[in-house]
Amino acid sequence: MYRTHKCGDLRMENVGEEVILSGWVQGSRDLGYMMYTDLRDRYGITQLIFIEENTSKELFEKARTLGREYVVRVKGTVLERKSKNPNIPTGNIEIAVSDLEILNVSKVPPFTIENDTDGGEDIRMKYRYLDLRRKPLQESLMFRSKVAVETRSFLSKEGFIEVETPVLIKSTPEGARDFVVPSRMNKGQFYALPQSPQTFKQILMVGGLDKYFQLVKCFRDEDLRADRQPEFTQIDCEMSFVTQEDILNTFERLTQYLFKTCKGLDFGKFPRMTYDEAMEKYGSDKPDIRFGMEFHNLNDLAKGKGFPVFDSAELVVGINAEGQAENYSNKDIKKLTEWMQRPQIGAKGLVYVKFGNDGSVKSSVGKFYSEDDLRAWGEEFGAKKGDMLLILSGEEEKTRKQMNELRLEMGTRMGLRKPQDFKPLWVVDFPLLEWDEDSERFHAMHHPFTSPKKEDMERMMNGDHETMKSLRADAYDLVINGVEIGGGSIRIHDKDLQSKNFDLLGFTKEEAEAQFGFLLGAFEYGAPPHGGLAFGFDRLCAVMMTGEGAIRDFIAFPKNNQGRDMMIDAPSLIHDEQLDELCLAINLPDED
Amino acid sequence: MYRTHKCGDLRMENVGEEVILSGWVQGSRDLGYMMYTDLRDRYGITQLIFIEENTSKELFEKARTLGREYVVRVKGTVLERKSKNPNIPTGNIEIAVSDLEILNVSKVPPFTIENDTDGGEDIRMKYRYLDLRRKPLQESLMFRSKVAVETRSFLSKEGFIEVETPVLIKSTPEGARDFVVPSRMNKGQFYALPQSPQTFKQILMVGGLDKYFQLVKCFRDEDLRADRQPEFTQIDCEMSFVTQEDILNTFERLTQYLFKTCKGLDFGKFPRMTYDEAMEKYGSDKPDIRFGMEFHNLNDLAKGKGFPVFDSAELVVGINAEGQAENYSNKDIKKLTEWMQRPQIGAKGLVYVKFGNDGSVKSSVGKFYSEDDLRAWGEEFGAKKGDMLLILSGEEEKTRKQMNELRLEMGTRMGLRKPQDFKPLWVVDFPLLEWDEDSERFHAMHHPFTSPKKEDMERMMNGDHETMKSLRADAYDLVINGVEIGGGSIRIHDKDLQSKNFDLLGFTKEEAEAQFGFLLGAFEYGAPPHGGLAFGFDRLCAVMMTGEGAIRDFIAFPKNNQGRDMMIDAPSLIHDEQLDELCLAINLPDED
Repeated sequence: MYRTHKCGDLRMENVGEEVILSGWVQGSRDLGYMMYTDLRDRYGITQLIFIEENTSKELFEKARTLGREYVVRVKGTVLERKSKNPNIPTGNIEIAVSDLEILNVSKVPPFTIENDTDGGEDIRMKYRYLDLRRKPLQESLMFRSKVAVETRSFLSKEGFIEVETPVLIKSTPEGARDFVVPSRMNKGQFYALPQSPQTFKQILMVGGLDKYFQLVKCFRDEDLRADRQPEFTQIDCEMSFVTQEDILNTFERLTQYLFKTCKGLDFGKFPRMTYDEAMEKYGSDKPDIRFGMEFHNLNDLAKGKGFPVFDSAELVVGINAEGQAENYSNKDIKKLTEWMQRPQIGAKGLVYVKFGNDGSVKSSVGKFYSEDDLRAWGEEFGAKKGDMLLILSGEEEKTRKQMNELRLEMGTRMGLRKPQDFKPLWVVDFPLLEWDEDSERFHAMHHPFTSPKKEDMERMMNGDHETMKSLRADAYDLVINGVEIGGGSIRIHDKDLQSKNFDLLGFTKEEAEAQFGFLLGAFEYGAPPHGGLAFGFDRLCAVMMTGEGAIRDFIAFPKNNQGRDMMIDAPSLIHDEQLDELCLAINLPDED
Repeated sequence: MYRTHKCGDLRMENVGEEVILSGWVQGSRDLGYMMYTDLRDRYGITQLIFIEENTSKELFEKARTLGREYVVRVKGTVLERKSKNPNIPTGNIEIAVSDLEILNVSKVPPFTIENDTDGGEDIRMKYRYLDLRRKPLQESLMFRSKVAVETRSFLSKEGFIEVETPVLIKSTPEGARDFVVPSRMNKGQFYALPQSPQTFKQILMVGGLDKYFQLVKCFRDEDLRADRQPEFTQIDCEMSFVTQEDILNTFERLTQYLFKTCKGLDFGKFPRMTYDEAMEKYGSDKPDIRFGMEFHNLNDLAKGKGFPVFDSAELVVGINAEGQAENYSNKDIKKLTEWMQRPQIGAKGLVYVKFGNDGSVKSSVGKFYSEDDLRAWGEEFGAKKGDMLLILSGEEEKTRKQMNELRLEMGTRMGLRKPQDFKPLWVVDFPLLEWDEDSERFHAMHHPFTSPKKEDMERMMNGDHETMKSLRADAYDLVINGVEIGGGSIRIHDKDLQSKNFDLLGFTKEEAEAQFGFLLGAFEYGAPPHGGLAFGFDRLCAVMMTGEGAIRDFIAFPKNNQGRDMMIDAPSLIHDEQLDELCLAINLPDED
């Protein structure tokens, strides 16, 4: 037997018992006549004690050979500690060891196995099995497991059936790039890995499954930005005979249930905001509403007064950084301006108006505007003494995006974005279509299966080009703390409406038939009204645990930004026989 | 609102209520002055009634347009039925419809949506969304979902953490053929889809996760026999600091729990049988122990009496088909012999001995053996009047396999293999290595990470070639009703032992390092003793529900024997741009 207890189990009431523990050597302190060793497993740390005069010479010498991360099995008696450690649950006891078996030795690890390690990102990825021994990572994975259990528990009780959809499906050029899988039995043909089970879950609704869910791996062959992964996990759901209201209510209750069971937090009803309002007030379709600092449009107040930059701008817009007037010197403002001018954001400049504690008004555009003008701006924001307005101008869409970045940065600097303060929000009424100037075509704002709102269907079937831009969809996103957790829509269930949508998106009849013929076919055999949504599971776990969207520590074996698994060293070359069987040849581009 | 109730909800106590239902039209009976329509959803069937004199002409005419599989929403009042249907839970009531909305029309389905459909396999695969509306398929998928919920519930309570391992991993030529995925970012290199998360779960043990599980998709690019799928699902588990006994006990309790919660069945302790005993008594490492009919070795009794076929055979072996002597005419025996001689089985002949109810003894080898000889054989089997011995001879391994087929066939014919009679069995002590005469090399009987039994380790490190054939492993399979549900082993956790095993399996040091270097590396940093197992989840569900191993109806979207998804028509050609991005060219073989 390897153990009678785990390393987190023993307490004062076990004193006197003979126990067996197994685990890893966290570290030792050798005092010469006695030795302390910390033994660690997933469940905790227990202190072992070897006293020279009480143990055999052989055992004592063996204990001295123990290095960090050795795996041992010990037998011993639980003692009350003289000097207790109140910081760990087993801090009142220690084990006087009578028998020690070394189960495995260990080389010295390349970084320390502590909460805060000294290992860099690359080495931790390569030695992921050592990184996984660190408590923060284990806690992340255990938290993830718990959220999955509770998600399934909630959805099962609500009558959802978990159905596994296939991983080997068909490539569709719409959306992101597919990973493809050559077929050996169907030479020259390829499967694709699913970017989401979208069409399959709709097929399940046509198949009468009524309520479907799945925690499912999805795949996108995108150039990896920080914190994107080529494979990720979704909570994927679909329901029949429902309206948008039914779906929002169901998944609002799921979210509340998860925060309750996994974090002990209670939420009231989630606020809702239209897409238009979110863009207007926050310049983002995923606003962080932990703090206000809403945008105010200054077009009426700031244009036509002779300041050419504003006069020529499509939009003049500002935020009020409350109480910041005295915190920002000219040098600080200059730095902030430079931060806004970095290519990632691309602002041309930044205008401020400071309302001093002494009643003064100062502004970088003071020579173009009278003090009364500036005070009128202040009134628009409800600014008080000590407040500072930050103002951007330019082309409307760009300027709103830039202002969004500035608002978030100021929120962070002002400590308004507390990680454990959770503010969920539904963003609703997304546009159905997005006009892309470059390619001169419409893109689906959500995806090609999203239904226009009922009141817009008639306009969609019969309207002109401009009308299409104004169509609104029954589409919605859940946002928590500025992180998009997921979203969904009511789907089209009518073949003609779906054909019209493919048409607007630039599919020829033949393309639509080749790629989605099975779905259009299914719509001819009694497709029910249906809709659904998907949450990014990795991101949900990250946000719930850390208040932020960084997912890498919530994935046991993540890939790096080049899509490589550093530990197993994949992808890799394959054998020529494998290529031959697949009828494939590799044509690498010339190096020069 | 689409519905106040589901189609399986309404009972006598709802009579008089106004309700709204949505669903599919199962069928209608038009009596002229009134019309009955069955409305179906996942939850049941409710009878709608339209009475001409009580409803508007418009509504009545609309009801007459309803075709099979139309999707409708109806409002109406719950009435008590005059002629009740005791076969369905809603059989006491019907709905007098006051409002009818046709939500979608349907073409006439290509097969009937009934429990027993008239659709062939191919058309049902193509129109899977219609097949899925059939109750047996919905029940299979719901059962599967339930088994998954209970599996997760049990393992979570036992302290297992569900960890998702990656789908994009590295190709290893060991075992079955991998599906590979070309990498765009690492040109000329490939990921592979996992045949199982074997190495990752071992890495998780090295990482201190202690108890891992996952319901996980696995992939094998094999030529598909009936009832094999290129993607399938495993209940995958691994534990640290455990012996074989711990693992068998844990998963025996899981199996008992699943049968209890999903079938209401109680099992006692599962019997165990060694691999050697299973081969000896049943000629199979997955014996169906719902019935006896064990093999008896007749070498001593039947050889050396002048019958050349037996005299030259390595093995003479028989079974006793109790009570069958009078049921098998010479013609029946001839047919059975021909059945055994089909190429799939390949027996040369079949010898019988019948003990007639009248006390007579008859045998096809009567001229070589005296009645006393034959009676002595009968005694060996404990044969009574009316019993019939069936005897095969030849090369030992082949003959045992043939006899296994015969035993199963006779068990089926004699009604001894009742689908809802469940007999689980642990088969233990598998050989570590299997010698392959053709390739003149050892194969791993389980997989290359399986540990020899502790008492065999010394012999493995230092023994000669013949010794290797006799090594036994801590490896085990769970078998139910002759279907292998899954298996596992205690793993090697010592680098030297693992290297020795790779060596025996014919890996060069370089090959072992290139493919499993990360695992060998991990073993140098304090790998704990560990072991685990995996159950085939599709098969477990099939066996639990139907008593048989046929999995296709337990997979929502299965592929056919050519690996094709008939509904979405995958795999398919991809665009040249996709191939170019992946630096791939297709070289199809010449057709001639």
